[in-house]
Amino acid sequence: MKKIQRDQLYDQAKAWVLEAGKNIREKMTGTFEIASKSNPNDLVTEIDKNTEEFFVQRIKETFPNHGIIGEEGYGDKLTSLDGIVWIIDPIDGTMNFVHQKRNFAISVGIYKDGVGEIGIIYDVMANNLYHAKRSEGAYKNARKLAPLKMNPIFSEAIIGMNHFWLCENRHVDEKVMQQFVRTIRGARTYGSAALEFAFLAEGIIDGYISMKLSPWDIAAGKVIAEEVGGLVTTIDGEELTMLDKSTVLACNRQLHHDIASFIKKGRK
Amino acid sequence: MKKIQRDQLYDQAKAWVLEAGKNIREKMTGTFEIASKSNPNDLVTEIDKNTEEFFVQRIKETFPNHGIIGEEGYGDKLTSLDGIVWIIDPIDGTMNFVHQKRNFAISVGIYKDGVGEIGIIYDVMANNLYHAKRSEGAYKNARKLAPLKMNPIFSEAIIGMNHFWLCENRHVDEKVMQQFVRTIRGARTYGSAALEFAFLAEGIIDGYISMKLSPWDIAAGKVIAEEVGGLVTTIDGEELTMLDKSTVLACNRQLHHDIASFIKKGRK
Repeated sequence: MKKIQRDQLYDQAKAWVLEAGKNIREKMTGTFEIASKSNPNDLVTEIDKNTEEFFVQRIKETFPNHGIIGEEGYGDKLTSLDGIVWIIDPIDGTMNFVHQKRNFAISVGIYKDGVGEIGIIYDVMANNLYHAKRSEGAYKNARKLAPLKMNPIFSEAIIGMNHFWLCENRHVDEKVMQQFVRTIRGARTYGSAALEFAFLAEGIIDGYISMKLSPWDIAAGKVIAEEVGGLVTTIDGEELTMLDKSTVLACNRQLHHDIASFIKKGRK
Repeated sequence: MKKIQRDQLYDQAKAWVLEAGKNIREKMTGTFEIASKSNPNDLVTEIDKNTEEFFVQRIKETFPNHGIIGEEGYGDKLTSLDGIVWIIDPIDGTMNFVHQKRNFAISVGIYKDGVGEIGIIYDVMANNLYHAKRSEGAYKNARKLAPLKMNPIFSEAIIGMNHFWLCENRHVDEKVMQQFVRTIRGARTYGSAALEFAFLAEGIIDGYISMKLSPWDIAAGKVIAEEVGGLVTTIDGEELTMLDKSTVLACNRQLHHDIASFIKKGRK
């Protein structure tokens, strides 16, 4: 993608994200309906659906030849990432949204032929915009984020991860992961994949692992994390396809090796 | 304690907490030395020590007959809570302080003859002051906090807890706790006991469990949580002595019963 096109797309996407966020903040003061998805841990709200529709309508009007992948299903049913594709999570961290009314984010990644060009994560209630264009660095609001430090070694790292890694699961022996949390300096669970990518880029956590993320959970975060020198792969170190659910390991290159090696010991 | 004395103590304590917080924010812009305590997970900084000294000096000057229990050891070696005792954690969430430079708090509880009279938790970088006087309700800044909702039933609750509950430990069978996290709606780990009490009072989490907290981790949070109708005990439902390390279970009265019963199944 040429820089001029990326810049235009970025300005447009950022404007829409900020507008959508403003709409959400205004609606948060009112009441809202909460519908249940397939299970109680997977809530969806009217605002979630409305926000995705907001993006889909505008993208289809303005860029009719762009593809869209969105969590709520208003986008296209894509089987490839050919061309320009917007990958959108209107509200990442839905459980936080419902229970906490904060600590959720709008996540928008724009990819061209499978390559991440733009990543935008908006912490709506904190009004923090994390954003990156490929090869131009990552920002939190107006501040350019420093490259990820290479010095937090494994035993000094704070890792974002949920508690299910330590329960019996089909990915990895939980006993190995219990040893993992005893080896690192600390584990944190914030309940939003997009925000955990943003916190990684910002240096709030040193790494992030997840057992199951969808493309819309990852797309923006991957661009932002890579722009500060992070490596974002499956827990086996393989490339993410952005078309299917996947495990994820995101951190600096040194930690990436150590974490992947540790997990490998218990990999099923 | 008479209301007039409580009000005076509260005004003084709040002023000192805000001043100490301002000092910390100013120092955060500079560099600071980090010393290791007994293990790498237990860091202490110059600011931590300076902040405790700040409180101890002022309390000893202004209230020479008050006792002080503080994390850094500049207080008194108390064996009872007779009289008026300040229980202080100058920086709760030291790991967050060092790694994140946010998400830590000053915690000050004031007890008379073992009864919590005043609780103040200051989220220094977010500039949020959680505060409560006994029988006068709890506040976040100027906003009075609502009583804890009784409706988040066990399976719909978000619980603050660290990952060590799911590893082999001397308190409870980790298999039972793995079932616990599969039963609740979500688990969060923020890395500061004081802030988790504050988040509980605010409704950001519905409960908080910890395997090992010291009096200074609990003192302010207990007062604040109780002022919104929360119950704060050991995980066995016993009263906290505020003189020793203890397990902690804090939540609304309905959840308290459910959580204590669940944990009891695996209690060692």
